[in-house]
Formats: sequence, structure tokens, C-alpha cells
Amino acid sequence: MSVNTFGRLLHFTTWGESHGPALGAVVDGCPPGLAIDEAAIQPFLDARRPGQSKYTTQRQEPDRVRILSGVFAAPDGVQRTTGTPISLMIENVDQRSKDYSEVAKAYRPGHADYAYDAKYGFRDYRGGGRSSARETAARVAAGGVARLVIPEVAILAYVTEIGGDAIDPANFDPAEIARNPFFCPDARAAARWATQMESVRKSGSSVGAVVECVATGVPAGWGAPLYGKLDADLAAAMMGINAVKGVEIGDGFAAARLTGEQNADPMRPGNSMANSGPRFEANHAGGIAGGISTGQPVVVRVAFKPTSSILTPQPTITREGDATELFTKGRHDPCVGIRGAPVVEAMMALVLADHKLLHRGQCG
Amino acid sequence: MSVNTFGRLLHFTTWGESHGPALGAVVDGCPPGLAIDEAAIQPFLDARRPGQSKYTTQRQEPDRVRILSGVFAAPDGVQRTTGTPISLMIENVDQRSKDYSEVAKAYRPGHADYAYDAKYGFRDYRGGGRSSARETAARVAAGGVARLVIPEVAILAYVTEIGGDAIDPANFDPAEIARNPFFCPDARAAARWATQMESVRKSGSSVGAVVECVATGVPAGWGAPLYGKLDADLAAAMMGINAVKGVEIGDGFAAARLTGEQNADPMRPGNSMANSGPRFEANHAGGIAGGISTGQPVVVRVAFKPTSSILTPQPTITREGDATELFTKGRHDPCVGIRGAPVVEAMMALVLADHKLLHRGQCG
Amino acid sequence: MSVNTFGRLLHFTTWGESHGPALGAVVDGCPPGLAIDEAAIQPFLDARRPGQSKYTTQRQEPDRVRILSGVFAAPDGVQRTTGTPISLMIENVDQRSKDYSEVAKAYRPGHADYAYDAKYGFRDYRGGGRSSARETAARVAAGGVARLVIPEVAILAYVTEIGGDAIDPANFDPAEIARNPFFCPDARAAARWATQMESVRKSGSSVGAVVECVATGVPAGWGAPLYGKLDADLAAAMMGINAVKGVEIGDGFAAARLTGEQNADPMRPGNSMANSGPRFEANHAGGIAGGISTGQPVVVRVAFKPTSSILTPQPTITREGDATELFTKGRHDPCVGIRGAPVVEAMMALVLADHKLLHRGQCG
Amino acid sequence: MSVNTFGRLLHFTTWGESHGPALGAVVDGCPPGLAIDEAAIQPFLDARRPGQSKYTTQRQEPDRVRILSGVFAAPDGVQRTTGTPISLMIENVDQRSKDYSEVAKAYRPGHADYAYDAKYGFRDYRGGGRSSARETAARVAAGGVARLVIPEVAILAYVTEIGGDAIDPANFDPAEIARNPFFCPDARAAARWATQMESVRKSGSSVGAVVECVATGVPAGWGAPLYGKLDADLAAAMMGINAVKGVEIGDGFAAARLTGEQNADPMRPGNSMANSGPRFEANHAGGIAGGISTGQPVVVRVAFKPTSSILTPQPTITREGDATELFTKGRHDPCVGIRGAPVVEAMMALVLADHKLLHRGQCG
Repeated sequence: MSVNTFGRLLHFTTWGESHGPALGAVVDGCPPGLAIDEAAIQPFLDARRPGQSKYTTQRQEPDRVRILSGVFAAPDGVQRTTGTPISLMIENVDQRSKDYSEVAKAYRPGHADYAYDAKYGFRDYRGGGRSSARETAARVAAGGVARLVIPEVAILAYVTEIGGDAIDPANFDPAEIARNPFFCPDARAAARWATQMESVRKSGSSVGAVVECVATGVPAGWGAPLYGKLDADLAAAMMGINAVKGVEIGDGFAAARLTGEQNADPMRPGNSMANSGPRFEANHAGGIAGGISTGQPVVVRVAFKPTSSILTPQPTITREGDATELFTKGRHDPCVGIRGAPVVEAMMALVLADHKLLHRGQCG
Repeated sequence: MSVNTFGRLLHFTTWGESHGPALGAVVDGCPPGLAIDEAAIQPFLDARRPGQSKYTTQRQEPDRVRILSGVFAAPDGVQRTTGTPISLMIENVDQRSKDYSEVAKAYRPGHADYAYDAKYGFRDYRGGGRSSARETAARVAAGGVARLVIPEVAILAYVTEIGGDAIDPANFDPAEIARNPFFCPDARAAARWATQMESVRKSGSSVGAVVECVATGVPAGWGAPLYGKLDADLAAAMMGINAVKGVEIGDGFAAARLTGEQNADPMRPGNSMANSGPRFEANHAGGIAGGISTGQPVVVRVAFKPTSSILTPQPTITREGDATELFTKGRHDPCVGIRGAPVVEAMMALVLADHKLLHRGQCG
Repeated sequence: MSVNTFGRLLHFTTWGESHGPALGAVVDGCPPGLAIDEAAIQPFLDARRPGQSKYTTQRQEPDRVRILSGVFAAPDGVQRTTGTPISLMIENVDQRSKDYSEVAKAYRPGHADYAYDAKYGFRDYRGGGRSSARETAARVAAGGVARLVIPEVAILAYVTEIGGDAIDPANFDPAEIARNPFFCPDARAAARWATQMESVRKSGSSVGAVVECVATGVPAGWGAPLYGKLDADLAAAMMGINAVKGVEIGDGFAAARLTGEQNADPMRPGNSMANSGPRFEANHAGGIAGGISTGQPVVVRVAFKPTSSILTPQPTITREGDATELFTKGRHDPCVGIRGAPVVEAMMALVLADHKLLHRGQCG
Repeated sequence: MSVNTFGRLLHFTTWGESHGPALGAVVDGCPPGLAIDEAAIQPFLDARRPGQSKYTTQRQEPDRVRILSGVFAAPDGVQRTTGTPISLMIENVDQRSKDYSEVAKAYRPGHADYAYDAKYGFRDYRGGGRSSARETAARVAAGGVARLVIPEVAILAYVTEIGGDAIDPANFDPAEIARNPFFCPDARAAARWATQMESVRKSGSSVGAVVECVATGVPAGWGAPLYGKLDADLAAAMMGINAVKGVEIGDGFAAARLTGEQNADPMRPGNSMANSGPRFEANHAGGIAGGISTGQPVVVRVAFKPTSSILTPQPTITREGDATELFTKGRHDPCVGIRGAPVVEAMMALVLADHKLLHRGQCG
């Protein structure tokens, strides 16, 4: 089966292929009355947009989003969401008319080519078709709508590690993130990464990366236990991003190496339940306990594998099962995790907005 | 909202609290005609059952499962699933009538107590109520049904690391797993863990653990891209287990530190598409590409935090927001990850069975 | 597939067969903090309970409901919903150990026997198994929970027609409904029906009926267009009740014979939007426009076919496809529509409660 | 909440307003490998298209459908579905720039205007916005895809009654349906309706209609009891169409006036279970028993109210709650039920296709 919808009360459906005429998202369940226009969504698409530095794919896509439905001028004259489905469309512009005969016949190792053929019998092989990371543009557009639903929350994603070279938390400066092409909060790491990526790019290799995302302002009480836990929904949201192979909440795998004393999240009086909650001294839990937010920052960490598109030829098979070799000639991201940061932010926004509405629905 | 259902075509709903009269699962969408009785499910519950070694909680629960619906003697005389909902019930027996006045008034740090109160206004505080790991018994029972749906798949989960002490892959012996109380596939590690856990237990501390789960026999083609990807569903399934803080597929976070060449999964002719697929030389991807199974073993790794129930008093607050201290007097697992292994297996079975049916529904 | 769950935010899953050990419902998504105990639900089951008059099946079932989860004593000492799944169980008591060999081998015409075998390959044939109207006990129990969610709404269902003999609207007296065994609001019609049903019962025949249900107090604004319209959800809820073959909202089929002038629902100032809505002069629409409630009474009418269980032998076939004849010897309702009234009320409550939460979730 | 998705395995999401730039549907879950192009879908849209006779709205819309995703040239050179979401878009062309200031300020009685404002706070009032019957174009396009999934089924809808004037079943001729602008299978009734509708149109009035739809070729076994019954899903599908107020399966409300003997559906040996099922002598049940298809024709009847847009002024209120009067000046259908026939067909196709996949998923 094909399941192209995500979310429960605020849900979105995406459609489109890498080299089709367009791709889009239909966002449904958005509360009415939120001020919205293309300009409110475009900046998030611009952050994810390819071709902005030499470290990302050179495909040139303006990624202009159009809102086709679900908005109208409210009595106050401001264009607002009406509560009906918001259809977002992004036209594909730079579908280079290259020769796809090679990938049509053989499977690129590490890509979804073989799996799609095994499932569906054939596939749109142009640029990866539906399995292309280009689809994440639709998620980012949907995420732009979701952000309007949760004005109380600030979301920030950044790259903490590329190819095994991690930032130094002591150098963390959020202002730095927008100053380099790596969404890197550590200026010194960004400089090192520039050198590393230059080498990776020139050699036609690729590297993995780790993205961390923090949402502040989430009140205690969001989350739908037991099978709609906030952390479980975040895990699904993140693991479903192209090239992601791991997800952690809070201390994640490191917590598995701690004792209960080391991992404790003591609480102290801050404000009572009637106010905005207790004072926490640590946040090993990443802002979620029992699947419900605690009022602390929600912290997620996501592992991106190196893209499988490299210049070194790899053994593979043809559709008929014969041996051959393939290497990737086309445009691609040498580190797909870099442009993953805006996608992680979008998925965080979509999950949190959905849970805000779910909580309001059940608990008033 | 409360979302206590998991799955799409084969889905289950669980109910029950740690100290209520019973807990259960309703499994819906199970194909008809599968031979089933309580004896087919009980062994999985027995593997998860508490009180079997001194390294797990001393609560004594027989965890006898009853099938209340959805089965009937088929014309061949064998009791089989009828295609209608299968109601599974497990009675709670050893709800010790201890004094809960302390936890009723204050929040155990690291537990879901505070989050539940923030969400719902009050909570069933006895033994954690709905947030207790006792609920995983219902998942394991449901998982027993799911296994009947996928006889072609073998699932094995084991603990690879406790408190930072990992197994040596060179010592991996699947037969060893059932021979020690730790689901440990490395006899030497099991011996070390016995010593470690004895110390943890005596000091009233706790430790984290890592569980790995491998499913072999999964054919290529299961998975529902893009928002029902097999890996995304597995991530949700695993992250939703009590105390889990991280999930990896295949190489997981390690892949983020590799180059594309190191992470490559080359394919060679094995059998053609018409047969059972290509020959792979590595499985960095953990058997999933583009959210769809590749025919290789599906590999998931899950991080369990140390249980928050420790004897060292921790600062916390009362329901009124005043400072107090709490330490856990009751019965608990010093390493909740150990009994997590059967739960991870159950969730793997439930996800795979669901995706088998989804694939059959769409792709015939 | 088997889909045994109904509802979106407030949803319930039922399980159980006519002659199994028990049947039940798991109600999920119920808001926390509602005062609840078995006594709050039992009266609705009592209204539906068989064996209370000679005009319904003589099966004797106390239909005692037990609440197994999801409730707890709140700080104020009152037992309340906790926001977690509410498991309701009703034990089967009077499963008469009759000989089922005949219906095991052949299909009762007009029943679901043949369809179930065609779908699932075999079936639990005892008393209809899962397709028995006995399952509606679980719906009625779930409906009892739903009513707690919508205290602002009053729901009343009654029988308006039996075997073609309709009530006279001029005689409508709601107080009459509880005074006769037919849920009939017209004392004179009730007297006629007693005579008619006596004859039907003695001859081993059966008759159909029409049930009308009115919900007052529903505010304007409930409903989830376009595919979760309030009327569409009500239609699904009612058409899914055993033996139902037709559903109307407001004037229903009669509206198809009217002109626009005759069918008009003019509005006059009553109270402004800021208050409780306009004054309507008619309610042809049955309280729903565009799938959304208008603030007027919600009116549904439901057609029940005569039960197919009659003493006149009918031609049918065996499982092997050979000709045979069957007539129904067992206990049954000569007019299943009578006991349908409490079921219609329950489904109305469940749909409205769900839409209240949905509206609150999206529109705050 | 807004729920703009219908279906379970084969599901579609629609978006768009009457006077927005476009409207569309995203069809998800369609099996791969089905030959498809715009020409396969366009005829169904043409049947529903306005402006084709003087008896329907004079709005001129070419209703050209574009397929934006989910299709690709298969290895055999034929464009086929790929198993990924199929995005269908229809541009709005004839959004007449009339003055909407009157309907912006006041509520058209009988329309959804007031209900939308009550729910969402404001609305897109141009031509009814999202509540316009124009949205049914998107359903019809989606229905065109659904038909590809069920080539074994033939679906035919026709109008049996307009303004209380019914066809004579003795004159039923399927070939007649396409020969008149009323989808009428009785030539004589069509002639009478032409006269009637001329009068209705000239006087600015409107009338209701009844549409019947029959699906032949549906095998026994489709349907998902108990809350995804085939008849319940059909009821929801039909009741959700604009202006529909009643739905019947088989004999519907007439069955409520029959005895069990009159309503009996006896079965005789035709073919055994191994073949294509028994021979039925009647089809009071409309091809569905216990929510599952019996192999007989599936019969649904749908009541459309007269459109509320009439020239006779009706009392109503302004947004501020003050008294005013409105009459409909714009273009509208004097009998919305006529163009309802293709919509009913589309919904029948969508429900059946979904249930075919559901059945295959569970029962393989």
C-alpha cells in the first residue's frame, strides 16, 4: 500500500515525483482564522532550496509555493485560513532532460530503486521518482502551515556532526546557524566542514551527518499515549525522512549507558501546576515522559547516512538480474544531511501542531 | 487525545492499568483461518513475565492470556481465527495493596506522573497506572497473534549492551539467548552482566540497555511509502515502548560517520526478480531502502534508559508544587531493557504482519 | 478486512460473538474528569435488554456491564474517567446449548451466513456469531460513555411505524415512550401494535419498523466537512446497525418530492451569532446544512427490515451448494426494530460526542 | 475539524473552492500497473459537466482534468499507475466576477452559509466556497481512477424520480439514459420531466429528485464488518454528496413495511461456493447482507432535496443577526439531483474499489 498522509487532526498528504510537472501537499485540519500567504511559507522552502552553495546539489529550483485553496480574505481584510484543505503546489522547473536509460535498466545500490520495483513491478526512475528527496519540499511547505498553528513554539534545527566531525557544544551559537551553508552552530566546525566537504565533493564521495532539533515553548501535556506518544510520532516523522537511519529523544543511546542516578531529571518548585510547571535541572528525557511533553525543550537527534550517489562504481544488477556496475553521474548532495535540517524542523512543527490540536480536542 | 490503537490493516487496541482488574488487547483485521489457541500465545508472555529471575521485578504475575472472541472451530476441527476481532485478556493478580499515598501526592522524577497530571488533570497513580510497563504484556499477546500472520519470518531480539558493557559480536551465539536471564547472545557478557546486575540491584540503582532485533525471511516489497515507511513504522513502534529513547535501523548513527563508499550496499546477481532477489554483500541499510524491505534481514536497535525507580532520593515536587523528595520503595526492574527484548520482538512482528497485509491489499 | 472501530477522536472498538464467553467495547479518547460508574451506563443496556416483553427475543441476558479500565477516584473522591481507554465487558449468560448442526451446514436466507462464509471461508454459526444483533449491546454500553461527553444534548429515539402502521404525529407524547414495550410515543398506536405483534409472534412471522431519533441541544458548528460530515457519519452509524436498510436526515426522501419553496428553512433574528443563533421556522434540513449542525434539532429516521428469522421454511443451499430448506426454530425478535431504538440513540450519542471533540480540536 | 479524505486502502483527498483557481483530488493507494491517462477519466467529468442543457446551471466549465503525478510509462510503453499518489487537478475557468457583497453579509437559507460561519468564524462566500457542489467534480475524477481498480464491476446510475414524478419500471431501458439530459431510463418520463423542468426553470423554482445506482459484477465477500460494512460505507459516501437527505440499500424504507415472508431472499443452487455462488430469486437486500456483498447487484437509492437557490425571496439574517431577505440571482441547477447521477456513480466506484483492496488485504 501507499500511505502518503501524515498526522491525525492536522494532517497532510503529499504527491509528486522528482521529474514530474509539479509536487505538492494538501494540508487538512488546519484551524481557521490564521493569517497566511505564500510569503509566510516561502522562507522555509528557501532554506531547503537546492543550488544555494557548492555543497548541495546543483539542481536549480526556485521552489515557489502557490496556495491553491483553503484561504480567504477574512472580514478584517487579512487573508486567513478558512478551515478547509490548503493545497500547496510547487512546480518543477529544472528537470534536466538527461539520459535515464542506464538507471532505467539497472538498480542504483543503496537507493530505493530495487525495492520500488520489487513492490510495484516498475518505477518512475527519473531522478528517483517518488523516492527522491525532492519530495521533502512538500513537507517543508506543509511545515510552514503547521508553524502558524503553534506560535508559542520556537523550533531550531542544526547540524551537529558531518562525517564524524562534531561541533563543540562550548562553541554553540544559534546566530551562527544562518551564517554558513551547513546550518552549523559552531563557527570553527563550520570552517572545518567547508574543507572536508570540498574534498568530498571533488572526489565524488559523500558523508553522513547528524541533525539536532530543539523545540522550546511546548507546554506540558501534549502527546497521545500509548500509541500516539509524542516521541513515537516524532520518531516516525524523522525516520521517514530520506536517508535517515536513526532517531534519538533527549540523551538517546547515551542514556542506555547511564545509571538511574546519572539519568535522573529531578524537579523543583518553579511554578505550580496552576502556572507553568516545575523547574527542571536536567533534561535527559528530552522534554517527553510517558509520551507526553513535560514543558521542557523537546530535543530530537537524527542520523543521516551518506547519500548513496557516489562516483565510485558499485556492483549492481539489472532489472533482469544480470551483473553490472553503476556510478552516479548526475547532480546530487554530497551530504544530504545538510539540507535535512529544514526538513527536520518542518516535521517537528507538523508533529507538535497535530498534538496541540489532539490535546485540545480531548482535554479541552 | 488518547490513541491506544496501533497498525493499519492488522491493528490492535490495548487497555488496562497496572493495578486494575485486568489488561488486554483487541486485535482486529487478522486474516481468517489461522490455527490459534492460548498455547500459541502464552510462550511469548512467559518470556516477558516478571519474577523469573532476581534481575527483574519481583511482582509475581502468571500472565495467563485468555482469548475471548474471534476464534472458532473450523470445518477441519481445528480452532482458527475467524477474521473478527480477537479479544485477549490478562488478569492482574499480584496488585500488592501497598500504601500509595506518597506517590499520590508527589511526582516521581523521570516517570510519567507529572506529564499525566499536566495532561489529564489527575491520574491513576497505583504502579504508574496506564503508563506502567505492565501494559507491554498486552502488546506481547497481540504480537503472538501477529506472528501467526507471518510464518515466513523469524524474529529474534537480544540484549547487546547493559550499562555500557557490550557483547563481543565474535561470541554471538543465538542458542545462548535462552540460556541466561538477560537474553544475551554472548555467554561471557552474560556472566559479566550477572555480576554487574547483582551490584546494581543491591545498591538500589538501575542501568540502561540496548536491544537488537533481527527479522529474517521478510521478502522484498513490504513498506508503504512515504508516510507508512517500514522503517518509520518500526521507529514509532519501538520508540513507543516504555523507557525507549533511541531507535536505529541497520547501521543507524554509525552510518552518519561513514562515507558513501563505506556505507555502500552493492548488489550481485543471486536470483533474478522472478526468484527471490539479488545477493547483497552488506546490509548497512538494515534491510530497508526507501521505506520498503529489500529482502535482506531487517535490523533494528533500541536504546532503553535506566529505569527512574532508584533508591537514591531525588528532589521533586508535590501536586501543589511544593518541594519534596522521593525514592522508589516498591518492586521494579533494575534494568527495564532486559524484559524489553520480548516486547521489541512483539512490536517487530506486529509491524511486519501489518505491512504484509498492506502490501497484499495494494499490490495483490 | 475487518473494521471494528468507529469514530475519530472519541472512538470505540467492539469485540465478541453471540455465543462466546463475553462481548465488549473499548472506548478510547474520552475526555478525562467525567464522573462515571457502571450505574451510569447500565440503564441504557437495560432499555435494550432482551426478554423484557413477549414481543422481543426470549433470550434471558442480564447484560451487566463491567468497567475494567480507564476510571479512577479523582482527588475529589468521585470515580472519573482518566482519559485512558475504558474497557467495557458484558458476559454472555444464556447461550442456550441448542443443536446448531443445521445452521452449520446450510445458510439461513436473508442472514449474513452466506456472505460471511464467502468472505472468511467459515464462520462462527452459533446464533449468528459476530453478525448477531447481540453485538449492539456493546454499542449501547459505549453510547453510555458518549452521553457523558455531551451533557448539553438530549437524545430521544422512538418507533414511528411497525409493519406499515404509523403513529399519528398529533398524538405524539414523549412521556408515552417508556410506558409501552414498543418505544411508541402514541398511546393509540401502541395499543394497535400490541394486537398486530401478538399476531405476528404467534404466526412465526416478522415485521419491519421505522425508528426516529431527535437530538436537541446540539450547538451550531459540529460536523467535519467534506468527508466527515455530521449527516454522513450519522448515515454510516445507522446503516451499520443490524437490519437497517435506509436512513434519512430531516425530511429525507420526502424532500425529494418538494419544491424549493416548500423545502425552505427561513431564518429570522433570534439571537445573533454571539448568542445562540437565529430562529428557524422549519427544520426540513434536520438540523444539518453542508454537513454541519445548524443549532436546530438533529433528526434522523432509520428503516429496519423485518428479521429474516421466520417459521415459514425458505429455500436455501448448503455449504456444498445443494438445495435445502430452512426455517428458524430459535429465539428471535419478531420486530428487530423495536429494540433498535436504544441502539439508534447510542449511535447518535457516539457520533455527536465525537464531533464535539473534533470541533473543539480544530476550532478551539 | 475538517476531514477531506474518504476511503481506507484506496483513499482520496479533495481540495478547492467554487471560485478558487482550481480544485483537485489526490488519490492514494491505487494499485500499480493500471493503464491510465486523462482520456480514461475525462468522460466521467463530461457527464457531470455543467452547462450542457438548459436544465442545469449555465456556468461554463470545460472541467479538463490533468494528472500531475503517480503515472509513468511502464516497460511495455503504456502509461500506467505507479502505486504512488495520483494528483488530479481541474482548473476553474468560469468564475464569473459577480458582486458577492450581498451573500457576504447575509446567509442564504437552506445553504451551508450560516453553519460554516458558526463553525469557522468566517467563510469563502463566493459561490458557496468549499460547500459548493462544484467540489463533486473532484470526486468524479477520483471515481474515474477507482473504476480502473474494479474492471469486473459495471456501475449505472440514473434518475428515477423528479419532483415526485417517478419513472415506470416497465419502461426501463438502460440505453435511454444517455439519450436525454435527465439520466432518465424511461423515455416517457423523460418527456414529462422536460415539460416540468421547463416550468420550474422559468419560475425560478427548484425540485428534488431520486437517483438509483446499481453495481453488477461485485463478487460475494466485499465489506468490512462491523464498522466498515459495505452498506454503511455506501451510506456515508452518498449522504455526503451535496443536497442528499436520504439513502436506501435494496428495498430500503419499503422493507420496513414488509413481513419477513415478503422480504425473503431465498437461495437456490446455482453454482457452488467454489464457483460463482448461489442463484437468488429476489434482491430485497440490495446485494448486501451483514455488511458484506452477496454476489447480487448492489442497489442504492439516493434522495436529493430541491436546491435552496430559488427566486422567491426568503427571510434570513445578516452576519450581525438582523432580519433581511435573500433570493438567488446567480446561476444554479434547478434540480441538483440530475447532475447527481454521475456523482453517485463515482462514489459507488470509490467505495467498491476500496473494499476490493481491503478484502484482498485481509483475506488474500
